[in-house]
Amino acid sequence: MPAVDKLLLEEALQDSPQTRSLLSVFEEDAGTLTDYTNQLLQAMQRVYGAQNEMCLATQQLSKQLLAYEKQNFALGKGDEEVISTLHYFSKVVDELNVLHTELAKQLADTMVLPIIQFREKDLTEVSTLKDLFGLASNEHDLSMAKYSRLPKKKENEKVKIDVVKEVAAARRKQHLSSLQYYCALNALQYRKRVAMMEPMIGFAHGQSRNGRGCREAECREKKSRQLFITPHVCWGAWVAQSVKRPTSPQDMMSRFVSLSPASGSVLSAQSLEPASDSVSSSFCPSPTCALSLSLKNK
Amino acid sequence: MPAVDKLLLEEALQDSPQTRSLLSVFEEDAGTLTDYTNQLLQAMQRVYGAQNEMCLATQQLSKQLLAYEKQNFALGKGDEEVISTLHYFSKVVDELNVLHTELAKQLADTMVLPIIQFREKDLTEVSTLKDLFGLASNEHDLSMAKYSRLPKKKENEKVKIDVVKEVAAARRKQHLSSLQYYCALNALQYRKRVAMMEPMIGFAHGQSRNGRGCREAECREKKSRQLFITPHVCWGAWVAQSVKRPTSPQDMMSRFVSLSPASGSVLSAQSLEPASDSVSSSFCPSPTCALSLSLKNK
Repeated sequence: MPAVDKLLLEEALQDSPQTRSLLSVFEEDAGTLTDYTNQLLQAMQRVYGAQNEMCLATQQLSKQLLAYEKQNFALGKGDEEVISTLHYFSKVVDELNVLHTELAKQLADTMVLPIIQFREKDLTEVSTLKDLFGLASNEHDLSMAKYSRLPKKKENEKVKIDVVKEVAAARRKQHLSSLQYYCALNALQYRKRVAMMEPMIGFAHGQSRNGRGCREAECREKKSRQLFITPHVCWGAWVAQSVKRPTSPQDMMSRFVSLSPASGSVLSAQSLEPASDSVSSSFCPSPTCALSLSLKNK
Repeated sequence: MPAVDKLLLEEALQDSPQTRSLLSVFEEDAGTLTDYTNQLLQAMQRVYGAQNEMCLATQQLSKQLLAYEKQNFALGKGDEEVISTLHYFSKVVDELNVLHTELAKQLADTMVLPIIQFREKDLTEVSTLKDLFGLASNEHDLSMAKYSRLPKKKENEKVKIDVVKEVAAARRKQHLSSLQYYCALNALQYRKRVAMMEPMIGFAHGQSRNGRGCREAECREKKSRQLFITPHVCWGAWVAQSVKRPTSPQDMMSRFVSLSPASGSVLSAQSLEPASDSVSSSFCPSPTCALSLSLKNK
């Protein structure tokens, strides 16, 4: 159904029942997306939480291993060996902790943050514009009712002119808010695809960057640590390879955005008055095809 | 101070103030050990908990990625690519989940369980025997007091014989319980060193076994998964190498136990009556030197 691709801004002024019906479909879709996004964010925050808890737990374990020395055991004979062995294990746990901490930071920055931003920016924008559109529509309906209740007498000509002015202003306001609302809903259809995948690319990229950090450390501590440090390199490299290794998730996104041609009909909204300024700011052309192709051509 | 090495069972019967004083040193040591063990257990359970939470979190994330398909978006056009990409990411997260789950199981079995067993078996045994020894001592004191209050008259000869019998029985009982208690305290001095390190060996071994499982999987799914699967192999192998790679922590322990010669003076307790049976059961010769040497000669 190609007609459902977007809300045509040209039809915003007429505000026909057909346009309203199509609008309700877009609104339903945005509602489903909001629910899904909240659940996805919850799942991602849980992964981040677990990773963060692993940092704290390994930190505590390492400290606890070192604390053996400070226990003032009444019988400390022969404990030197135990102490030095526990120190050694503590170091091992510390190194593991460094990896966990780095990974937790990556997850926060590249997985959780983008989806929070999507929710706070895009979804909140749609919901705000929905409210404004509702208010403008009500205002317009009220002024129309006022106009229809006007007496037909000649002597009320001046009042009539005022009411007509009011109707015109209300219609202009409703038109403006509907243009903004339609644009936000159209943009959301493109944004949502990127928004669903950006955090997972960040997730994969986080593992990859984590791996690269480890690889550098590996070069420094060549021999003894070599085998210990490679884990995240391997897994990171594999994931990074699968997603064709971009420089950063942002670079990846911008590459996709610049690759995809602007899709005409929606963009044409920008030439319409009066909502053009607010349209372009929230507009995001479709990067999804390029993105998913790149992901699938592994 | 070689005299503080062990409580001499030969001195249990005499129960001199010097022996009592030495006993209190061993008791203080056992108390410190109990506190430390509880803290160490807590730290290890936290690591296990974090690992377990990571399993559940990755499971939830994978499910949530798959759930996109079932959202009944009012506008589903072009979602096939998003769906297939999220399916792909879900698989990646699933594979990560398998590794996390395996590792969590290993941590439970080889890190948390041994220290719980040490607490439940060794520390609880010492605490129980301490109570029994206290009861037997009180009983002995009471019968001694009874004996000392006996009138010196001839006609009470029969009563006197009964009280003497009672004192003898109480002393035998106290002697038995002190032998058991001393043995448990002596054994604890050896056990504690192993008990502190066994969970960390289990921790390292868990990573190693986890790695081996992955390596087998790696052989099966040679090419595409190769880089992904190696992580835990590397870290596991490094740790395992450091601890001279035993077949299992139990094997490692039994090897150390069989290697170390029985240390005479404590063992000689077994020839003493009446506590010999219960002595040998809780006795554990010193595996610590062999263990820590092996750990340090990496």
